Amino acid sequence: MNIVDIIEKKKTKQELTAEEIRFFVNGFTDGSIPDYQMSALLMAVLLNGMTDAETFAMTDAMLHSGDVVDMSALGGTVVDKHSTGGIGDSTTLALAPILACCGVYVAKMSGRGLGFTGGTIDKLESIPGFDTALSEEEFFDVVKRVGCAVIGQTANLAPADKKIYALRDVTGTVNSIPLICASIMSKKLASGSDTILLDVKYGSGAFMPDPESALELASKMVAIGALAGKRIGALITDMQQPLSDHVGNSLEIIGIIDVLRGKKNRLYSEVREVALRLLALTGKYTLQTAEKAFCEAIESGKALNKFAEMVQAQHGDADYIFHPEKFEIGARDVVVADRDGYVTQMVAADIGRAVTRLGGGRMTKSDVIDFSVGVIMRVAIGNKVKRGDVLCEVYHNGGRGLSEAKQLVFNAITVGDERPAEHKIAYAYVDSNGVEMY
Amino acid sequence: MNIVDIIEKKKTKQELTAEEIRFFVNGFTDGSIPDYQMSALLMAVLLNGMTDAETFAMTDAMLHSGDVVDMSALGGTVVDKHSTGGIGDSTTLALAPILACCGVYVAKMSGRGLGFTGGTIDKLESIPGFDTALSEEEFFDVVKRVGCAVIGQTANLAPADKKIYALRDVTGTVNSIPLICASIMSKKLASGSDTILLDVKYGSGAFMPDPESALELASKMVAIGALAGKRIGALITDMQQPLSDHVGNSLEIIGIIDVLRGKKNRLYSEVREVALRLLALTGKYTLQTAEKAFCEAIESGKALNKFAEMVQAQHGDADYIFHPEKFEIGARDVVVADRDGYVTQMVAADIGRAVTRLGGGRMTKSDVIDFSVGVIMRVAIGNKVKRGDVLCEVYHNGGRGLSEAKQLVFNAITVGDERPAEHKIAYAYVDSNGVEMY
Repeated sequence: MNIVDIIEKKKTKQELTAEEIRFFVNGFTDGSIPDYQMSALLMAVLLNGMTDAETFAMTDAMLHSGDVVDMSALGGTVVDKHSTGGIGDSTTLALAPILACCGVYVAKMSGRGLGFTGGTIDKLESIPGFDTALSEEEFFDVVKRVGCAVIGQTANLAPADKKIYALRDVTGTVNSIPLICASIMSKKLASGSDTILLDVKYGSGAFMPDPESALELASKMVAIGALAGKRIGALITDMQQPLSDHVGNSLEIIGIIDVLRGKKNRLYSEVREVALRLLALTGKYTLQTAEKAFCEAIESGKALNKFAEMVQAQHGDADYIFHPEKFEIGARDVVVADRDGYVTQMVAADIGRAVTRLGGGRMTKSDVIDFSVGVIMRVAIGNKVKRGDVLCEVYHNGGRGLSEAKQLVFNAITVGDERPAEHKIAYAYVDSNGVEMY
Repeated sequence: MNIVDIIEKKKTKQELTAEEIRFFVNGFTDGSIPDYQMSALLMAVLLNGMTDAETFAMTDAMLHSGDVVDMSALGGTVVDKHSTGGIGDSTTLALAPILACCGVYVAKMSGRGLGFTGGTIDKLESIPGFDTALSEEEFFDVVKRVGCAVIGQTANLAPADKKIYALRDVTGTVNSIPLICASIMSKKLASGSDTILLDVKYGSGAFMPDPESALELASKMVAIGALAGKRIGALITDMQQPLSDHVGNSLEIIGIIDVLRGKKNRLYSEVREVALRLLALTGKYTLQTAEKAFCEAIESGKALNKFAEMVQAQHGDADYIFHPEKFEIGARDVVVADRDGYVTQMVAADIGRAVTRLGGGRMTKSDVIDFSVGVIMRVAIGNKVKRGDVLCEVYHNGGRGLSEAKQLVFNAITVGDERPAEHKIAYAYVDSNGVEMY
């Protein structure tokens, strides 16, 4: 078997065998296949596509390039939710305690933020004392005891993906549905949950530009997950504006506490949708019984208590959860509308970039994050505003990046004459039973 | 400008600007663009194509990566003929003295053989004393004085092509019409002739498998040459069997002498076709007057004398041209038919490979060539043969590679029941006036 023949096959639109796919994934990972051959092959894949069988074989080869986490010792249903990333996406942290209250395990390994997107791990570290680097033993112990735990990725999951992604990033081969699918799913399948809900976002703050392409990616990932024997579904959700009205690190924790206290905003709707789908996927709930359990977890205060319990179990100061006013927040400034009208659209990514400029995100991996800064949105798409109304609050630290951030946010929010169509949280849901449109 | 944006554009089928194309050709040549980005781009070009304007820009950037030969000092019409390569392709050496007799200059820089194809320079060196490494000054002096000269490529022509080709060769990006076109034309345009006839071959001994794809490549090259202000045309010719019945180094010189003496075989027909087209292209001849001049050059013996004159001017022993029996040829063996029938097809490349096995070609660039070995074909496609008839003679040196070569040649010649359709020398001719089918 040789790599030039494999490139030739893909170039001429022939289907690759699982053996050929393993050959190039392993060969590139161990260095025996040079990057210039791999990048030519990746471009051929991007332009000629991959069948589900090929994508599964690539996912499988990448997943077996590193550790595969075994969660069977937990002895229960272990659920996972993966978002393709967005602005103000605090879903995971609101979701974990709610699901734990509903009797399923959430053993979540999350990432840090880079560029215009925030990371769950960074947000958690804004809670004083919170330890995101538990040993595997302690992690499982917290999950078993509390029902949920969230740590940074410690295991060596899918190292092939890391190497392949770095090459794709500099060779114009990122936006390929099969390659994105294999990248996400190799890590998901390696992290050991048995029930997975994918949250595939589209819009100005997301990787996929439109709902149709997001649905295409989601369907492919669901097919691959099903081939791997998982219970899996995907929601296609809107990321045309920040999901939480709180964007930043401490600020997003405050936004999560709002939801766990029952505040019915966009984040609440999203968390509810994800929770119901995930609980139904486990087979232990129907959508109706899941809704009941979801409302009960929040209204009883159990979900908020569970969040505090998790924070405490991970050595954080749980007092912050019950008294979010303890979070140290930067100085307040505001961005106001310069005309009357309707908020017609937002460039969500630029609101993320504004937070990064304020110091709340990373431009490079080694940047240190300022937890205290961020943005609170006071408007959403469709809202009517008057000239001088506050569009959003900007929290800064001694003016660092302030004028740039305000300009970015101001430009990101369009105020126009026409009332825009309503923006629904979800566009579609897909699982092995097919697609359901919202 | 950056390479990832350029890859992105080509990937999404947008036309690249001349500036963008110069950027990546120069950047890859000087090492500032790494091979893994270039190979991804080349794959995108292979799969999405290039317009004539893009191909011209790429050709132009590659041609200006090295020396550009200036032949204006010769003060006359300088013609060049380029073959895409084949088996027993001795056209250049028969053509040069004939064209010189017709009053145009032939200042030819040729290559050496590698793999299954022979090289003009190797064939010339089988003439004792022949110097293929004249200084530029002496080269132009011979051209001016004799009318023709043939040397190895000395100038640093299109180094970008050398580097790009080496990458294409290992990344499955060879068979792209625009890339092949830019590779050939960058060197052709850098070598300074004003009138160019391309001989694009198809079939089992050629790079292009069928006449249609050969015509596509030819049309593209003609378009690029015309954009560069050259008088240019292309013949699409058959390479389904060796062109000369003599294949090898000394043997091919003997075959050329046969043609210059007026022997009317396939090589003669090919040389005649190329000569007429080339002379007509210069504008100094019509096809009719060119034919008259061609016949006169051969029948008068002037062309053979001119060949001897060129050999002498390049320090070779011209006596060999008048007495080809002086060439030292290997021991003779034969391959015979094992059944009655018609020669229906040949794998021309395998006849080339047989000569290489005998020692008459190179597997690697450093191999030393044995001029004395080769094959003389005794049949052509369409010939009727009886069991035991000689299909070809094999000339070897002490049995080196003999059994392997005989097996290759035997397997390369198919004898079947049905008389095959006639194989014409040429399939089509194309120049700026359009395509003319044969």
